[in-house]
Amino acid sequence: MSLIVQKFGGSSVADADGIKRVAKRIVDTRKAGNDVVVVVSAMGDTTDELLDLATEITSDSSPSRELDMLLTAGERISMAALSMAINSLGVKAKSFTGSQAGMITDGVHGAARLVEVTPQRIHAALAEGDIAIVAGFQGMNRQTGDITTLGRGGSDTTAVALAAALNADVCEIYSDVDGVFSADPRVVPTAHKLETITSEEMLEMAANGSKILHLRCVEYARRFNLKLHVRSSFSELEGTLVIPENSKELTPNRLKEIPLEQPLISGVAHDRSQAKVTLIGVVDTPGSAAKVFGLLNEVNVNLDMIVQNVSTDRPDVTDITFTLPQDQGAKAVKRLEQAQEEVGFTELRYTEEIGKLSLVGAGMKAHSGVSFTFFEALSQAGINVQMISTSEIRISVITDLDKLDEAVRAVHTAFNLDAEGEATVYGGTGR
Amino acid sequence: MSLIVQKFGGSSVADADGIKRVAKRIVDTRKAGNDVVVVVSAMGDTTDELLDLATEITSDSSPSRELDMLLTAGERISMAALSMAINSLGVKAKSFTGSQAGMITDGVHGAARLVEVTPQRIHAALAEGDIAIVAGFQGMNRQTGDITTLGRGGSDTTAVALAAALNADVCEIYSDVDGVFSADPRVVPTAHKLETITSEEMLEMAANGSKILHLRCVEYARRFNLKLHVRSSFSELEGTLVIPENSKELTPNRLKEIPLEQPLISGVAHDRSQAKVTLIGVVDTPGSAAKVFGLLNEVNVNLDMIVQNVSTDRPDVTDITFTLPQDQGAKAVKRLEQAQEEVGFTELRYTEEIGKLSLVGAGMKAHSGVSFTFFEALSQAGINVQMISTSEIRISVITDLDKLDEAVRAVHTAFNLDAEGEATVYGGTGR
Repeated sequence: MSLIVQKFGGSSVADADGIKRVAKRIVDTRKAGNDVVVVVSAMGDTTDELLDLATEITSDSSPSRELDMLLTAGERISMAALSMAINSLGVKAKSFTGSQAGMITDGVHGAARLVEVTPQRIHAALAEGDIAIVAGFQGMNRQTGDITTLGRGGSDTTAVALAAALNADVCEIYSDVDGVFSADPRVVPTAHKLETITSEEMLEMAANGSKILHLRCVEYARRFNLKLHVRSSFSELEGTLVIPENSKELTPNRLKEIPLEQPLISGVAHDRSQAKVTLIGVVDTPGSAAKVFGLLNEVNVNLDMIVQNVSTDRPDVTDITFTLPQDQGAKAVKRLEQAQEEVGFTELRYTEEIGKLSLVGAGMKAHSGVSFTFFEALSQAGINVQMISTSEIRISVITDLDKLDEAVRAVHTAFNLDAEGEATVYGGTGR
Repeated sequence: MSLIVQKFGGSSVADADGIKRVAKRIVDTRKAGNDVVVVVSAMGDTTDELLDLATEITSDSSPSRELDMLLTAGERISMAALSMAINSLGVKAKSFTGSQAGMITDGVHGAARLVEVTPQRIHAALAEGDIAIVAGFQGMNRQTGDITTLGRGGSDTTAVALAAALNADVCEIYSDVDGVFSADPRVVPTAHKLETITSEEMLEMAANGSKILHLRCVEYARRFNLKLHVRSSFSELEGTLVIPENSKELTPNRLKEIPLEQPLISGVAHDRSQAKVTLIGVVDTPGSAAKVFGLLNEVNVNLDMIVQNVSTDRPDVTDITFTLPQDQGAKAVKRLEQAQEEVGFTELRYTEEIGKLSLVGAGMKAHSGVSFTFFEALSQAGINVQMISTSEIRISVITDLDKLDEAVRAVHTAFNLDAEGEATVYGGTGR
């Protein structure tokens, strides 16, 4: 008997019919002889509706104890409704809040971190033959007894953390897409679904704009050597297996699931949420770059790519360019402008009209020639590359925003990633 | 400094504006120098919407662990929203679920009884100067850790139980009516608001159709000698004080609030939710009535009025008539018809076309002549009385349903209860 953790996003349980469809699926998994623990997000737009209520009531709807209390009502509704739907199919189910399921967090409202998972009540429910339905996205601060939410990707994180704590055989992440694709099918209609991807590659995809899994959940799964199965609740198709590279759990049978020859490249990720700052005429003394990044660190800016060019005509000054999330742009610009004299730059340029493209593939470790094919494809498509960064299994470039889609398609084609037909695209994704 | 418990029903917090209005009122109470604990129902129609969701999902939406989990999401939303609204006015507030507030219940889902109230976290919040907002209608079964709901009148019961446990000075029950009236203003437009009513009288009013307070809450308040103040959240008017007859807490100052001469009669209650069963030709042996009531007890029927007539022509048989809640009619009739031979009756008649009118007043203990005035008023109005029952402070009669309103008005006038103007009538009432 296997233990399977299944996570369903908000779009999978958007209404009563969705809940009934998901209930049927869970019951099928149970009847196939598995123990099942389910993590569920709030129904459809519930969280947004609760946020709207909050903004109607107060001008300060920033994260707080009370906002967390409010938002967690969403999962309470979906988990109870799902449990009722399963019970009505004649299979026993019980729902548990994050607190009841033992999701213990720190006290940071709106972005709490899990500090411990103590799922005694889930073990007890499974021992009684029940399906356990657990509220995603939430936990409890043990010190204060207050309810907390985990922030973005919270329900995925709940599922993975619970799967790790329960030593589950697999954690299935259901959404409205069929799996992980070689590129976003909305940009590249011929993108193909990956059968497998290593968690290292998945990390790079998630960190570079792929929205199918949150970075935090992939990191958690990788750390606990947990196998993820990314699939759609709207179809019966197999999805994508995200497999730990060095999984202790990879028994010979499971190893068969991984193709002997990993493809060179897994896919192309893109990201439109970055902004670019250029500081022109920075006096090039030792420590001037350190000063800039120190200031940005003060205001909690997450830098991504950084480039420093020394001008040939004026070797005493330099230009520093970096990228950061758009939603951190205002505070970064403000802090730097306050310190213009101290840092000693002549001009600050800020733009959100950039796109980031990343080619990801564990296979590129062992193959030369990847960079050549990559840049040749961009060049032939007439794409101007503004910045470059690389890791062992990734090459990223910054392009003009309006050239990004074309660049993604060009690279996708150059690495022979195009499928025969077109991928099916559904709606948005759940929390 | 006084400790005031305030309870707001669903109609008072139906939308964001309602929540903000209620928040302002709570803050005013706090700023007047009181400690404040608030019990809140779910917003407006939330509970009905959650019940609708349940019936969409399952054909069996009878009370259960999961339905309780679902419904309690309603109070979670209202309490967090109310707390945020108070915080935005610059006054500290924290919300607490029933479980967090220490509302410990038995395990009967949908109709749980409080077994203990352990409000440590509420004490702690008050000690920190916070306003505590508590979810009405819910508690936790300590044995299982499961969430329960208290059923009808649950939020009022939460407020009164919490007020008793905290030794509050007064429990204010806010709804959309200005207080307790001498009759339902929708039936008697000239009904007047009572300044005070004893809890004994209030019990009789609640037990006989007055919907302003639930019987359970009045019983609880009476048992704990707690003063209730029934008032409207839509106006600043003083409402009605419900005062324990033998309250230990009635200091000389408070006693001034009670008029020295209690009026003879407090008011007229009516009830359209009763049904009448008549068993004709019951063989009049010792124990035949006991047999009938034993059968009804088997199926948990709550009998109200009972009359037994021995026919003068056939002294060996008797007719037994009783009233019961309409929603228990079907099971009562079914059980009796199954046992027709055993009981030995010739015919069973069932009707819901009856109304119950009750005249309530502590003053009638000491005054003769009340019955005369009462029945003369009914007689002059041409009202046929089907059944009669009395207590020390109440006379009730059953009339034809279509004569009930006329009867209420006739009795109200006969006892000089009519006010000069007409009462203001708002919408429905909260949970």
